[in-house]
Amino acid sequence: MIATKAYAAQAADTPLAPFSFQRREPGPHDVRIDILYCGVCHSDIHQVRDEWGGSIYPMVPGHEIVGRISAVGDHVTRFKVGDLAGVGCFVDSCRVCPSCLAGDEQYCEEGCNQTYNSYERDKVTPTYGGYSSTIVVDEKYTLSVSPALPLEKVAPLLCAGITTYSPLRYVGVTKGQKVGVLGLGGLGHMAVKFAASFGAEVTMLSTSPSKEADAKKLGAHKFALTSDPAQLKALRNYFDCIIDTVSADHAYATYLDLLKTNGTYILVGAPPTPSPLPAFSLIPKRRKILGSMIGGIRETQEMLDYCAAHQITSDVEVISIQDVNQAYERMLRGDVRYRFVIDMASL
Amino acid sequence: MIATKAYAAQAADTPLAPFSFQRREPGPHDVRIDILYCGVCHSDIHQVRDEWGGSIYPMVPGHEIVGRISAVGDHVTRFKVGDLAGVGCFVDSCRVCPSCLAGDEQYCEEGCNQTYNSYERDKVTPTYGGYSSTIVVDEKYTLSVSPALPLEKVAPLLCAGITTYSPLRYVGVTKGQKVGVLGLGGLGHMAVKFAASFGAEVTMLSTSPSKEADAKKLGAHKFALTSDPAQLKALRNYFDCIIDTVSADHAYATYLDLLKTNGTYILVGAPPTPSPLPAFSLIPKRRKILGSMIGGIRETQEMLDYCAAHQITSDVEVISIQDVNQAYERMLRGDVRYRFVIDMASL
Repeated sequence: MIATKAYAAQAADTPLAPFSFQRREPGPHDVRIDILYCGVCHSDIHQVRDEWGGSIYPMVPGHEIVGRISAVGDHVTRFKVGDLAGVGCFVDSCRVCPSCLAGDEQYCEEGCNQTYNSYERDKVTPTYGGYSSTIVVDEKYTLSVSPALPLEKVAPLLCAGITTYSPLRYVGVTKGQKVGVLGLGGLGHMAVKFAASFGAEVTMLSTSPSKEADAKKLGAHKFALTSDPAQLKALRNYFDCIIDTVSADHAYATYLDLLKTNGTYILVGAPPTPSPLPAFSLIPKRRKILGSMIGGIRETQEMLDYCAAHQITSDVEVISIQDVNQAYERMLRGDVRYRFVIDMASL
Repeated sequence: MIATKAYAAQAADTPLAPFSFQRREPGPHDVRIDILYCGVCHSDIHQVRDEWGGSIYPMVPGHEIVGRISAVGDHVTRFKVGDLAGVGCFVDSCRVCPSCLAGDEQYCEEGCNQTYNSYERDKVTPTYGGYSSTIVVDEKYTLSVSPALPLEKVAPLLCAGITTYSPLRYVGVTKGQKVGVLGLGGLGHMAVKFAASFGAEVTMLSTSPSKEADAKKLGAHKFALTSDPAQLKALRNYFDCIIDTVSADHAYATYLDLLKTNGTYILVGAPPTPSPLPAFSLIPKRRKILGSMIGGIRETQEMLDYCAAHQITSDVEVISIQDVNQAYERMLRGDVRYRFVIDMASL
C-alpha cells in the first residue's frame, strides 16, 4: 500500500484538515500519479458540506488532477514513468453498458465511479480525490497531458473544461454561429474560450456590468446586461445556442426567448430549485433544452489535445493547500478569477 | 368576390352561429377549394373563447380542411379543378426568412398567416377558417390530398397529424426505439399510430386504466398507468423518446426520468402553467426537451403522402355543423374518440 498525504473533511461541518490514508499499489493496468496540481471545483464545496446528501466521510475532494506518472503496472501501454497525466471526475465505470461502450462513461448505467465521495468497483473501498499527494488509477481512465501548457492552468480543464467543451461540440457550435454564455465563473470562462475558439460570435450574458471587460479579455465579442429589459429584448431570437453555467436559482424562460428557431439551451449549472418552464418558450420556435454532464474519457482526451493545439487553458489563482478553506469562502463570495488550483508541493 | 357561408363566433362568450362573408376571387396563384370536411381542434375552442388573448371577431374557426378544387388561377401548376386538396394551420408566410426558405413556414420570423384568427399578408384582411363552404388559398400553401383515403379521416391530419409526425421525424424515431406517448386525445392517438408505423415499440402513458384497450387498438404495444409509482419506476431510463400531448397542467419531471441517456422529451401540448424543471432531470443523462409546432408545407405533404401509402388516418366522429357547439362541450369533457370532423354538406 502507498501512504498518502491529503486534506480531508471529517464531517459536513468541519473544515478540511490534514489526513493520511493508504492507496492501493498499482495493479497490472494501473498507473500511479504523483499529483502536482488539483483544481478546486464548486462541487467540492457542495459535497464537503453534504449539500447534495449522501456524502461519504472522511472525504478527500478534488477531481481536476494533473501530475506525473511515478509507476505503471505490467500491462500499461499508454503511459510510462515520467509522463504527465490527468484524472477527471471519475476513475472507473461498468465498461459494458451502452454508454460505456459508446465512450460516454459519464452516463454509465450503473453510475460511474467518481474520483471522490464514491466507491471503487468493489462498492466498498471509498474513492479519495486529488487534494492528496498521489493517486492510483486504471490507465483507461487516465488522461494524457501535454507538456506544452502550464500544468496548473490545465488542471481545471478536467472538469470545468470538459463540462463546457462537450455540449458545445455535441450541439455542433461552429464558425458563424451566435453563442450566449450565461455566468462568468469556472465553467463560464471556459465556455467563452471554447465557443470563441470554435469560431462562434460569443456574447456574455450577465447581471453584472463589471464582467464586461473581463469577458472581452477572455474572448467574448459582445456583452449584454441581462438586468436591462431593453438589452434582452434586442437579443430576442438571436442565439443559435446559449450555455447556462449558473448554479444559483434563475428563470430559464428569460433566456429561452433569446434563442432563434431550432436553437439549443444547454444546461450545465444545476440550481437548487426547479425553474418554471412555459411550453410556449419552446414550441413556437422548435427550441430545445439540453442537459449535459462532463464528458467521456475519449472526448476529454480530445479536449486536452485541442487545448494544447490551440493554447487554451483556464485562468487560475494558485494556492497552497493550507489556504483551501479560505478559498472556499472566497468562492462562495464569487471572489475568484476563475479557478483556484492547489499547488500540491505545499502539502 | 365569393359569397361564403360559415359558422362564426361573434364574441368570446357567444356560441358559434351561421355567418356569411366574402372570399376573394382566386388570384393567378390561388386555388378555390369547396370544403367537404373540417376537423375540430381543441385550439378552436381556446381561440373562439379568447383564452389565449387577442382573438379577432367575427371568427370562423377551422384549420383541418379538406375539399375539392373548384377553380384555379391562371398560373396555378400543381392543381386542377376536381382535385382533392387540403389546408392546414396557415395560408401564407413571408416566404423569404431563413425558416420559410428552409420549408419551415410554421416558424416564419414574421409569424405565418394563420388560417383563421389572423390576417392576410396585407395585415388588414382577416383570415376565416374551415367552418365554411369554400376557401381561397395560394397553391403554395395548399396540400394535395390522395383519393385513396376516406376524406373525413384525412382532415385531422392537417393539424393533429402533422403536429405529431413532424417532431417524431425530427428526432429520428425509427425501428427498435422505445417511444412513450403521453395523453390519448386528438394528438396522442396520431402519435401512437405514427410511432408504431415507424417501427418503434409504443407505450401509452396514461392516468386512466380505461385507455389501455383503446391505445392497444390504435397500435400501442404497452400501457403504463402513470398514477402507479411502481409502474413508473419500472420504466425509469426506458424510452428513447416521449411525446407529451397533454394540454392540462402536469409535471414534466415525472416523465423525464423515464428517458434513457440522450433521450428526447417532445412537447406539443401546451399547459397553461409553466412546469417546474429540475436541472438534474436532464443533466445526468444528457436528456433534452424539444418543443415543436405543426410542420411546414413540404413536410405536411410528405406526411399526407406517407399516410396514403400506409393507410394511416385519424379516428373521427363526423358531425353536422349545427352540432358544433355541443361538440365543444363534449371535447371539454374528453368525450371524443378522437376528433370531431364537420361534414360541410350540413352547412
